[in-house]
Amino acid sequence: MYKGLIEKYREYLPIESNEVIISLCEGQTKLIRASNLEIMLPGLEIYLKFDGLNPTGSFKDRGMTMAVTKAFNSSSKAVICASTGNTSASMAAYAAKAGMKSFMLIPDGKIAMGKLAQAVAYGAEIVPISGNFDEALEMVQAFSKEHPVTMVNSINPFRIEGQKTAAFEVCDDLLDAPDYLMIPVGNAGNITAYWKGFKEYYSLNKTTQCPSLFGFQAEGSAPLVNGMKIDHPETIATAIRIGNPASWTAAETALTESKGKIQAISDALILKYQRLLASTEGIFAEPASCISVAGLFHAYENKQLLPNSRVVCVLTGNGLKDTDIILSKDFVLPTVKTSFSEVKAQLLGGIMR
Amino acid sequence: MYKGLIEKYREYLPIESNEVIISLCEGQTKLIRASNLEIMLPGLEIYLKFDGLNPTGSFKDRGMTMAVTKAFNSSSKAVICASTGNTSASMAAYAAKAGMKSFMLIPDGKIAMGKLAQAVAYGAEIVPISGNFDEALEMVQAFSKEHPVTMVNSINPFRIEGQKTAAFEVCDDLLDAPDYLMIPVGNAGNITAYWKGFKEYYSLNKTTQCPSLFGFQAEGSAPLVNGMKIDHPETIATAIRIGNPASWTAAETALTESKGKIQAISDALILKYQRLLASTEGIFAEPASCISVAGLFHAYENKQLLPNSRVVCVLTGNGLKDTDIILSKDFVLPTVKTSFSEVKAQLLGGIMR
Repeated sequence: MYKGLIEKYREYLPIESNEVIISLCEGQTKLIRASNLEIMLPGLEIYLKFDGLNPTGSFKDRGMTMAVTKAFNSSSKAVICASTGNTSASMAAYAAKAGMKSFMLIPDGKIAMGKLAQAVAYGAEIVPISGNFDEALEMVQAFSKEHPVTMVNSINPFRIEGQKTAAFEVCDDLLDAPDYLMIPVGNAGNITAYWKGFKEYYSLNKTTQCPSLFGFQAEGSAPLVNGMKIDHPETIATAIRIGNPASWTAAETALTESKGKIQAISDALILKYQRLLASTEGIFAEPASCISVAGLFHAYENKQLLPNSRVVCVLTGNGLKDTDIILSKDFVLPTVKTSFSEVKAQLLGGIMR
Repeated sequence: MYKGLIEKYREYLPIESNEVIISLCEGQTKLIRASNLEIMLPGLEIYLKFDGLNPTGSFKDRGMTMAVTKAFNSSSKAVICASTGNTSASMAAYAAKAGMKSFMLIPDGKIAMGKLAQAVAYGAEIVPISGNFDEALEMVQAFSKEHPVTMVNSINPFRIEGQKTAAFEVCDDLLDAPDYLMIPVGNAGNITAYWKGFKEYYSLNKTTQCPSLFGFQAEGSAPLVNGMKIDHPETIATAIRIGNPASWTAAETALTESKGKIQAISDALILKYQRLLASTEGIFAEPASCISVAGLFHAYENKQLLPNSRVVCVLTGNGLKDTDIILSKDFVLPTVKTSFSEVKAQLLGGIMR
């Protein structure tokens, strides 16, 4: 019986034997063969690492089981974070399981509705602020230094430790590391964590190689691509709307060491590939996740990938986190049909199309 | 590498070796120990089978991998269903993976927003009708008899076959069947499928017992409890808002054979236990799912459970499917804070509470 990623990968994690583990059975997410994308991009073997199937619907649960476990086993009374939504939802869930209070600062009052609903349901205390993510993070840091409250943003080193297990799982499933990893980059903690995981497995001779990491940022929120921080990042992919990534330096190291690339993708392409992924592979991921699929097509079209390669696209969050993006875009519900003949007419029209 | 429930349980399923499998790696969902509920209900060992972590966020994926696989390997051109949301989301996703068209009839035009967004993203054609679920189902049956379109509602016998694998997984994880299974009952396909699964495993000597099944219906939508069909079922738990269950007889057999019970729970209790589950166990499930937890408390308080028993509550769908229910109930976002001192004041107040 699977009991979560700390139990599974305990030997690779900084966990003491006497620590109580706070887990929601996160991890062990599916690596799904993208057979229809493979038809569109001949020569590639393509997999989707669907981390949106974690307990709170995002990859953040991997780091949070570690961070909240550590907080619980310390003298901390509560946990706190600044968040665009996924981190706070995850924090709130693990804090609930641990019986700890949780506090979340929402930058610019902006958050996808699904993520807000999660935080409310899990019982987090919500603090909307008028500043951006960086300002929220500064407040969280200042507060947690003065009070017995643990900050669980990705500056918390245990977060990266938990998140690196996603790389382990990919390698365990493929029986080696892939050739390329396509990954969304926001605060840059996840690309840092994947690289740490791949390097650790390689150094233990569990794989024959490390992949090249291809990171993608939204055009309006691309500090790593542009080489400078952005005061007012903008993108519909709210989960990666961050102008000054906490793990900037570590991400640059990962990109250099892995012979990877960091590139920008437009919001229009993000939305296009979100629909393409859902309507061809049957996988509904949130916009930020789909930048890895948009990026795969971009890299393929620009001949950045060697033929006969094995590629993994990281899908960081569940599409259900942000359904407004689907229902607000050009969507009109068909008129209500009141008779079987009206129903038949619509169905036959649909079959013919 | 896990490849979905048909590959995993092929020997127990009516699948031919030459059939192409349509899978999104459904199944293998987590069985989570409810350590905090156990404190509230002393004497019980409690687990949550969180089927909301399936690819489309509900248990329907288990039956749909079977139904769409069979449709794809037949001469069918498309799939169709009547649905309150979870079935259609699942159908649309598997149809997308199979490259087939899909059509969904929505009764009374009522559907949770998350489920509608999924269907739109996956590319289903939506047909809202003015009739109730039963009327929608009749239209679907009539249309699929006349055209090469496969009906994938739970009358489709392959659905039950796929869904029974949830019982297998519970037994595989616990190394035996539990003593009790608490399960939501809407169209009654899932209770029927679980019972089939438990009986099959028992007959193969893979378990030492079968559990007693405790089914729960919403008060305003409780045909099995009341012994008569309901023309206008009403409940906030839309996933079980069905007045004339397709698997009525099979469910009654399961209840009798398992020495189980069918009982009604109010909407108020469903919502209360949705919050309790999220805020104590960190699991956010949709209202219909939470009736199994509300039902567990009801059964415990009414001394219906033997002490020192092992209980599994089935959580059929993800809370993210229906976030309106959280944000519309008494929820007010705190005012936006414009300075660190305002933020500190709120945080310190929260810590004190």
